[in-house]
Amino acid sequence: MYAALDIGGTKIAGALVDEGGSVVHRAELPTPARESAQRMARTIDAVIDTLSAAPAWGTVRGVGVASAGPVDTAAGTVSPVNIPAWRDFPLVESVRAHPLLLTGLEPVLLGDAVAMAAAEHWLGAARGVDNALCMVVSTGVGGGYVLGGRLHPGPSGNAGHIGHISVGIDGPPCACGARGCVEGYASGTAITRYAVQTGWSPGPGLQPSAAAVAASAREGDKRALAAYDRSARALAAAIAGSAALLEIEVAVIGGGVAQAGETLFTPLRRHLRAFAVLDFVRDLKVRPAALARDAGLIGAAAAARQQFTERSGAAAPVVHETSA
Amino acid sequence: MYAALDIGGTKIAGALVDEGGSVVHRAELPTPARESAQRMARTIDAVIDTLSAAPAWGTVRGVGVASAGPVDTAAGTVSPVNIPAWRDFPLVESVRAHPLLLTGLEPVLLGDAVAMAAAEHWLGAARGVDNALCMVVSTGVGGGYVLGGRLHPGPSGNAGHIGHISVGIDGPPCACGARGCVEGYASGTAITRYAVQTGWSPGPGLQPSAAAVAASAREGDKRALAAYDRSARALAAAIAGSAALLEIEVAVIGGGVAQAGETLFTPLRRHLRAFAVLDFVRDLKVRPAALARDAGLIGAAAAARQQFTERSGAAAPVVHETSA
Repeated sequence: MYAALDIGGTKIAGALVDEGGSVVHRAELPTPARESAQRMARTIDAVIDTLSAAPAWGTVRGVGVASAGPVDTAAGTVSPVNIPAWRDFPLVESVRAHPLLLTGLEPVLLGDAVAMAAAEHWLGAARGVDNALCMVVSTGVGGGYVLGGRLHPGPSGNAGHIGHISVGIDGPPCACGARGCVEGYASGTAITRYAVQTGWSPGPGLQPSAAAVAASAREGDKRALAAYDRSARALAAAIAGSAALLEIEVAVIGGGVAQAGETLFTPLRRHLRAFAVLDFVRDLKVRPAALARDAGLIGAAAAARQQFTERSGAAAPVVHETSA
Repeated sequence: MYAALDIGGTKIAGALVDEGGSVVHRAELPTPARESAQRMARTIDAVIDTLSAAPAWGTVRGVGVASAGPVDTAAGTVSPVNIPAWRDFPLVESVRAHPLLLTGLEPVLLGDAVAMAAAEHWLGAARGVDNALCMVVSTGVGGGYVLGGRLHPGPSGNAGHIGHISVGIDGPPCACGARGCVEGYASGTAITRYAVQTGWSPGPGLQPSAAAVAASAREGDKRALAAYDRSARALAAAIAGSAALLEIEVAVIGGGVAQAGETLFTPLRRHLRAFAVLDFVRDLKVRPAALARDAGLIGAAAAARQQFTERSGAAAPVVHETSA
């Protein structure tokens, strides 16, 4: 059994997840994002308290903690954009100190996009794929890698930041300070903004949103289709670039924008044929995410499981080779 | 001692390299690139014959083979662009079959840009750096990664193909079929072409070349400076993108274009400040390659050494952890 926490701007979710990836027990509280750092920490304690009441708690082998970013896994700290209460908050230390946690259990911290990659690799659309990119395309764009069959969070947990690579050195300025970032073309925010700029409107009394643009696109609205095409083209260039750099076999796309379905995926596959042209990347596949709900919790559990498996030596091929 | 081969379009070089990275014995023959596949293989055999005459041959622990690409390390085959004699040639099998090679030695094949990364990581500008990108910027643009302290060639040995990621989805078409590839802005060929297009010329009786453009740039020629600036800007976007995806700490740049020195590196560092803006990539450094000569041989030896070290268990931290 693995304990999992998923800390977001609106809720703090916890779960016990079994070896097969099923959630057998869960707990949830609203995030006191604008209160004190300590109040935040106590809320997490309360979620753990609830989990610890389950009989399965006694068999917990690891604890995974997915958090909204930025995270710094080397320092064990988080500074989530949507949780002003926390800046460089020592989340790992705070969870480790919970009195009901088994002594010696070291919480594994990971960013939410990396958690999504862990979840999709364990049980979702990247299952059985040794080299995969998983992306969240929503109000922002994030991602995480599986390389050589293992999660690849990078030294500080920030690898996979595909929203802020430039696919347009002469493209539009980005809020991050660079220019032509993937996020500036591909996010829900960018899709909506571009559609509005080109004259699209959501209809009387409705707010503009990526979902509303998708609805118009399904009805054949040319400006709405163009906004999704522009998003898909930037995603295709970034995914193809990722594949050229890392021999990615599958790119999984989740998040709100992926909910547009073929409105996004049809132009994405077409643009991918134009950008993924090197021999070794030509078979690259894109797939929608399979685990929308609970991806953070499942991913946190997956990371705890990888830690447990590797510490217990089950994934140490070097040992097997030399003893053979 | 490690045996190393470096197979290029003009010469086939071989060396015995010691544990400290010194070349203690070498051999070299011209590449019969346009003759038969078998003639090519026999030439490699002759280079190995010469190496095997050295007394140190008896202590060879591994064999590394760097080759011009494309390579397919999973299949053990190579199809070097500049060696028409070889298409899907089984190079690993051919080297393994040499009668003087110790039985059980499995040659390690790697592409030449990945070999350069291995060499720079072992003894050059990426020494002691756990996460590095090494690039060759020449008539083309290639690269290789060190991730988590290990060479990361990818499943077929092609990871690091940074010349063909797009940094300009609305940029110029590339010979590969995509658009806005780094190579189309940054290579020596691209620098020369752009300079000529904007009215630069090398002076009476001289051929246009990236070196000639660099010479004009050093004299303050605005068109020559602009051509290097354009190259540097594309490299900066690609390097910053690599860092956002993989938490690269250092990017090493070698190849003919890097010979331009500060004509390239000064604008490169300036553009990097514009593109590498995320917190965790802001400390990213660029450095010129340290091992111009023998990088292929040293890299091939480094890969053989990594294979030997890992097989003999010296690099299996998992074992140490569980026995502690």
